[in-house]
Amino acid sequence: MSLLVVGSVAFDSVKTPFGEVDEVLGGSGTYFSTSASYFTDVSLVACVGTDFPQEHLTFLKSRKIDIEGIEKMEGKTFRWKGEYGYELNEAKTLDTQLNVFESFKPKLPESYKDKKIVFLANIDPDLQREVLKQIKEPILVACDTMNFWIEGKKDSLLETLKLVDILLINDGEARELSGEPNLVKAANKILSFGPRTLIIKRGEYGALMFKGGRIFSAPAYPLETVFDPTGAGDSFAGGFMGYLSKKMDFDDANIRKAIIFGSVMASFNVESFSLDKIKSLDYSEIRNRYNEFKRLTHFEALS
Amino acid sequence: MSLLVVGSVAFDSVKTPFGEVDEVLGGSGTYFSTSASYFTDVSLVACVGTDFPQEHLTFLKSRKIDIEGIEKMEGKTFRWKGEYGYELNEAKTLDTQLNVFESFKPKLPESYKDKKIVFLANIDPDLQREVLKQIKEPILVACDTMNFWIEGKKDSLLETLKLVDILLINDGEARELSGEPNLVKAANKILSFGPRTLIIKRGEYGALMFKGGRIFSAPAYPLETVFDPTGAGDSFAGGFMGYLSKKMDFDDANIRKAIIFGSVMASFNVESFSLDKIKSLDYSEIRNRYNEFKRLTHFEALS
Repeated sequence: MSLLVVGSVAFDSVKTPFGEVDEVLGGSGTYFSTSASYFTDVSLVACVGTDFPQEHLTFLKSRKIDIEGIEKMEGKTFRWKGEYGYELNEAKTLDTQLNVFESFKPKLPESYKDKKIVFLANIDPDLQREVLKQIKEPILVACDTMNFWIEGKKDSLLETLKLVDILLINDGEARELSGEPNLVKAANKILSFGPRTLIIKRGEYGALMFKGGRIFSAPAYPLETVFDPTGAGDSFAGGFMGYLSKKMDFDDANIRKAIIFGSVMASFNVESFSLDKIKSLDYSEIRNRYNEFKRLTHFEALS
Repeated sequence: MSLLVVGSVAFDSVKTPFGEVDEVLGGSGTYFSTSASYFTDVSLVACVGTDFPQEHLTFLKSRKIDIEGIEKMEGKTFRWKGEYGYELNEAKTLDTQLNVFESFKPKLPESYKDKKIVFLANIDPDLQREVLKQIKEPILVACDTMNFWIEGKKDSLLETLKLVDILLINDGEARELSGEPNLVKAANKILSFGPRTLIIKRGEYGALMFKGGRIFSAPAYPLETVFDPTGAGDSFAGGFMGYLSKKMDFDDANIRKAIIFGSVMASFNVESFSLDKIKSLDYSEIRNRYNEFKRLTHFEALS
């Protein structure tokens, strides 16, 4: 079953202690759809400016991503500039130029309106609902958000949360959204806002899933070389939603497996700048790393 | 097989956002031996002052801890005072009074010298070796340390590390000891100092074990009420070493199980001030929480 994502397509300039890149392909929609493309068909809703090069569109098409929903608008493509310190856990944003994203009003192509699985990447919660309204009968809706919307558009965000099944955010965002420092209490409060499932991403510490009183804890893959965490959360979401979309069964066992596939994709993502590593993986590499997660976490039950 | 630990017995004064306690029973040796006592016989080497009340000794004896190695010295018992913020991850030390610990020269009772399993809790690395020298034929030696010794007595610490099989430290200490910000690189460097196994404790993020090129990742138990993290690392070590001492088989499977038992004991520890929770557990509570760790981390293998 194919998956629809609305998110950003952008030029990123990133500096880490291990190097820097200038105006490379980035954006939540790009990372998400590239990651999901290893599991399922993906249709991308986004906008770019007239400065967006054909080669990037050609790349997305090569991953069999449906880009009919990418609107080319007068003006410049969204740009983000950030820097990471040695701990590599949180980006310091140096510059954000929304450009064409400022006036983006997503209008879905007809063929997109029958999609059943929807991911609303981190954009204005008004826009997230705008997209969702155009989908006829979604059966699984997930979304991401960030502190910018929690602080600036909380009422709108809470409206969006009433409509989503799964929320994926990081630990700082979970604490801010709930006003609770304790993550378990924070999760219970956020689940009362609407989503039935909450996934809290914790970067190098993995992810926690809260659903119906149960908790699942997934580790991050311990890597010797982390180059650039940009896009890790979106690659996680892409692997997660891609796997669920492939299975079309959202029971607890599949959600747990999907979280591991998300963790696998995030682990590949951070091993290079931009999409360099996740743009050309073999599915066997993904399976092998899934199996490594299994070995990484295995311990025997009590007899 | 019985287990020997050398560590501190202390009075702790602790303030957290959830309350405060004054001069309660604490110290690495106390937490360790109480935690280990659920799994095996423990003999404790430590010192106290003349102000140390009989009721605390009576408590330790009630846990079947051999306290012949606790030396009563002229002077006052070791005191520590600390405070935690809302994140509860790192203590701010407000005051340390070594008192009798300043002139402590551990002399092991004869019956202690045949012990086979040894834990050198966080004390001066000179003293750690002093104790180890008195053990005739140890078959498993583990130790803990802290930034104070890494910074002030690194050469002595490196001497101790040559003699230990397992080192347990936290992530900040691992980075400081190795000079490597990346934990995987830090671990590989530390393993080159002597220990065959390294366990890195990460508080609310669980623990990582490095051994022979393999890594095991254990989560922390997500708790709704964390009152006081003091002693969590020592309770972890006590559960870990206690289980290994009970099994007397140190293969990979048992080390992984031991890490989960350590995590179980640490999770109980932080649910109350001082030893309030871990001083009177049923073994069935420990087993139940172990089983919860199994559910918390379970995901299916690929077919």
